[in-house]
Amino acid sequence: MRATTIHAPGDIRVEDVPDPTIEAPTDAIVKVAAGCICGSDLWPYRGHNDITPGDTIGHECIGVVEEVGGEVSAFSPGDFVIVPFDHCDNTCVHCRAGAHSGCVNLGFTSSGQAEYARVTQADGSLVKTDGMPDRSLYPSLLTLSDVMATGWHAAVSAGVTKGSTAVVVGDGAVGLCGVLAAAQLGADRVVAMSRHESRQAIAKRFGATDVVAERGKEGAERIAELTGGVGADAVLECVGTDESIKQAFAIARPGSTVGFVGVPHGVELPVRRMFQRNIGLAGGMAPVRKYLPELLELTLSGAIDPGLVFDLTLPLEQSPEGYRAMDERRATKVLLEP
Amino acid sequence: MRATTIHAPGDIRVEDVPDPTIEAPTDAIVKVAAGCICGSDLWPYRGHNDITPGDTIGHECIGVVEEVGGEVSAFSPGDFVIVPFDHCDNTCVHCRAGAHSGCVNLGFTSSGQAEYARVTQADGSLVKTDGMPDRSLYPSLLTLSDVMATGWHAAVSAGVTKGSTAVVVGDGAVGLCGVLAAAQLGADRVVAMSRHESRQAIAKRFGATDVVAERGKEGAERIAELTGGVGADAVLECVGTDESIKQAFAIARPGSTVGFVGVPHGVELPVRRMFQRNIGLAGGMAPVRKYLPELLELTLSGAIDPGLVFDLTLPLEQSPEGYRAMDERRATKVLLEP
Repeated sequence: MRATTIHAPGDIRVEDVPDPTIEAPTDAIVKVAAGCICGSDLWPYRGHNDITPGDTIGHECIGVVEEVGGEVSAFSPGDFVIVPFDHCDNTCVHCRAGAHSGCVNLGFTSSGQAEYARVTQADGSLVKTDGMPDRSLYPSLLTLSDVMATGWHAAVSAGVTKGSTAVVVGDGAVGLCGVLAAAQLGADRVVAMSRHESRQAIAKRFGATDVVAERGKEGAERIAELTGGVGADAVLECVGTDESIKQAFAIARPGSTVGFVGVPHGVELPVRRMFQRNIGLAGGMAPVRKYLPELLELTLSGAIDPGLVFDLTLPLEQSPEGYRAMDERRATKVLLEP
Repeated sequence: MRATTIHAPGDIRVEDVPDPTIEAPTDAIVKVAAGCICGSDLWPYRGHNDITPGDTIGHECIGVVEEVGGEVSAFSPGDFVIVPFDHCDNTCVHCRAGAHSGCVNLGFTSSGQAEYARVTQADGSLVKTDGMPDRSLYPSLLTLSDVMATGWHAAVSAGVTKGSTAVVVGDGAVGLCGVLAAAQLGADRVVAMSRHESRQAIAKRFGATDVVAERGKEGAERIAELTGGVGADAVLECVGTDESIKQAFAIARPGSTVGFVGVPHGVELPVRRMFQRNIGLAGGMAPVRKYLPELLELTLSGAIDPGLVFDLTLPLEQSPEGYRAMDERRATKVLLEP
């Protein structure tokens, strides 16, 4: 099949690789209808993560079940499915407690930017639509495989409640979905910290009531002004750098929680501040399957339209250009069509 | 008055110092009936915190109101009161949200190991008993000024629920009170990690169902065995060292929360593990006033007897010996009688 591969930092290719096959009876193979590039794919692209040259890359996709293993009973070839980036059996002790991303049979999509993807624990991981969805829904459905569920996890982890003031640090696709999630969960005030006009515009469509372009000390001062000196009731940290984490803890009110979903890189948590101000940290890798049924319903009913985060669609063969566009911030999120 | 002072690491004295006086109309002066030495007093004693030579030390006490400022209306001379180590107005935006230790008028007891202590924000901070309590209740009432409320905060922050398995890291007075709190909050299984027989015995009286003497990797393996490989539903971190924090995150199950109340010293939080396993961190300096009415009721009704943490009572004049006894682990917690 044709698949996006990474050979070195900055070296993304589209090549022929072997088709994925059923390796365990709980596996399924999905023919990818749409895949995309994640902000976290930029970590290896920029040389911050180790890679094995030639590895396929991409962990987000939707598509049609092509083949299932002998123990897969809930899905059949032809089903249209959302593929969570993190696979789980949805039955183990951790899944039952809602910690699906800690599943004892955890797996990951490894060729979401390709023609086919293998899904482990298919029965537990996948969620299907009734029949084939309209293609216009693909972008929004695709976000449910990661970024929308991840933004939702940030909001839930931060404890966003009705009437609260939520601040979102990070204006990538996850941050924007975090804005949408906070608004859906009833926050009265949703502040998007963003310096980019196009992203600010999406944030506003998603329910941001305020935009703060400043960062660091000035950003914290603006949040203090907006909250009458109190600080945010809930902070969604959607980047994963030391700077963004420090920003989050600088604006969270005493007794509140920072919900973090940005994969941490070079982060040193401000433990003294956390202790002195009783600011908690919760979140992590999103338990996508946990939220998927609810998010699918919200999407199909039109209550949310997270697909707006895609501002560039390319054929799969142009994956390298998609990476460049995201790396150079010319695009917020790139959808790839096989 | 006679007061305990610190002049250098290891140099504790009892000296004459000026009596505390009403400095603000919201202050009260309390004649100390009983004070005590806190595990956190050992940080400066051991040279880990900066001090100003000659400073009074001690932040836990109970006693009788001696004098009140012009704006104190809820207390009068003669009232017997519990003095939270952290003073708060109990009316500000943070107190109203239950984050009393983030009060905008936060203050601290600074001469709890002395004859008199000044309490700022007396109306907000203090809680009184109906009449003079029996002296046999002093030890338990004294724990409410810090360690029992702090152990309670660890359990609440860790999200201990009915039927859960809670593990307490640390067998100092706070850890032991954490055991008591977890049991009171309905945990089915309360595991005390302790290597000291006398402390294990108190832990068992407080409701520990299991004791794990191992630490580090072996300790984590024992917790894994005890929980069928799942890990703890809630972990109370009651020490504050890097080792104890790492221990806590090593035994917490995915999706759970570490409640931390040990003042962090040299701690580097394991952010990658927290992210990958969705293990949160909550807690910090305890909002003592928040819990005080409930804890006072539990104490007066006999439901809890946290005073058992005191295993050495000395006259105030022997404060230095009290510090030595705690430093050398000959005593768990030392009560001082002025």
